[in-house]
Amino acid sequence: MEAEKKLEELGLSLPPIPTPVANYLPLVRTGNLLFVSGHGPGILKDGSVSFIQGKLGKDLDVEQGYDAAKQVMLNILQSMKQELGDLDKVRKVVKLLGFVNCTPDFPDQPKVINGASDLLVALFGERGRHARSAVGMNQLPFGIAVEIEMVVEVED
Amino acid sequence: MEAEKKLEELGLSLPPIPTPVANYLPLVRTGNLLFVSGHGPGILKDGSVSFIQGKLGKDLDVEQGYDAAKQVMLNILQSMKQELGDLDKVRKVVKLLGFVNCTPDFPDQPKVINGASDLLVALFGERGRHARSAVGMNQLPFGIAVEIEMVVEVED
Amino acid sequence: MEAEKKLEELGLSLPPIPTPVANYLPLVRTGNLLFVSGHGPGILKDGSVSFIQGKLGKDLDVEQGYDAAKQVMLNILQSMKQELGDLDKVRKVVKLLGFVNCTPDFPDQPKVINGASDLLVALFGERGRHARSAVGMNQLPFGIAVEIEMVVEVED
Repeated sequence: MEAEKKLEELGLSLPPIPTPVANYLPLVRTGNLLFVSGHGPGILKDGSVSFIQGKLGKDLDVEQGYDAAKQVMLNILQSMKQELGDLDKVRKVVKLLGFVNCTPDFPDQPKVINGASDLLVALFGERGRHARSAVGMNQLPFGIAVEIEMVVEVED
Repeated sequence: MEAEKKLEELGLSLPPIPTPVANYLPLVRTGNLLFVSGHGPGILKDGSVSFIQGKLGKDLDVEQGYDAAKQVMLNILQSMKQELGDLDKVRKVVKLLGFVNCTPDFPDQPKVINGASDLLVALFGERGRHARSAVGMNQLPFGIAVEIEMVVEVED
Repeated sequence: MEAEKKLEELGLSLPPIPTPVANYLPLVRTGNLLFVSGHGPGILKDGSVSFIQGKLGKDLDVEQGYDAAKQVMLNILQSMKQELGDLDKVRKVVKLLGFVNCTPDFPDQPKVINGASDLLVALFGERGRHARSAVGMNQLPFGIAVEIEMVVEVED
């Protein structure tokens, strides 16, 4: 449970289990790859979910966007923990695609998605270093600030 | 031909074979995975293609978007049938990325992309349940309403 | 070095090695697949990087967008060369996702991304023919005109 121990050292913990919002799964495994669905910055509290909403460049600044991306990654880690039992079964984070809800002139998508990338590297070290794209969207589901999908290589 | 029989029971049929619009392929296979190109809601009729065009939140309502996503999936299924011969060779739908052409305040991308997801589950049952992202775009090729790309695991 | 020879015949050459802009890698290999990060149309000159910036439909025309997508692909090829040593180890280009920074009414994303697709087919022939999506974005990092990510199958 090294990865979860590191999470604790960072003062973080896995969030409660999210509820799927439509006719799809949080992730699907094919061979040694997990394809993880787009997750949002949902926060489950007292049984109801609230989202970090708004557009970068208008409603949220880069630091708030960074925190939203970090929350998204915590939610992804929870989904992976449900599948894997133990996050240490992650062999390598392969690829991350980060969607940032923003105004047409907001140029700092990479700084926002760093909130997710930095957490992965802090938890998994070299195995957490990944390929990545960060792009700007005119809108995301429910007006969330960030959505991230991911491909991960896991143990047999 | 179970999947195609189900399609018929749903009152649907595979569309005519679409024509590629540029220097790329409808899908590429690597190992047991098909990577399917972004498909649109083209409708081939009397030898010419028309598209379901327009932006959600302005030109189309959610139900029309749902129908567009369903049409996209029919086109994808046709491309897969061309490759596989029989859609029953689908072992598992892995991942779907749904792009919704919309206004900057349209929040219901998931309800739109359900038009594709629901069809997959209706046809393939458990094997059709997939990971997914749904996101909002400021524009798509030719002004189409929905574009979807997909990863599918197929038999050897 | 067939692919690089072809590149030379086309009057092109691999650009200098780009500098990563955040906490991620240019690409990650899993099994026989390379997942390539979103690359931009950066041009390294005299030790400093400039980018082809602007929105299609406003700041750049289709031809300029085509050239930007071609430059992106040259940068991706450079990253792949760093990893593989020899571009001839590419067995098959699998999938390309092209993000075009554009106005909400620009419909020619495919014509722009052809700048990358055409180069791949010119270099690799049949092995270069790929699955693809081309989509319109309201903004990209640093205001770049085009960003492309890719999946490639390589030799053992």
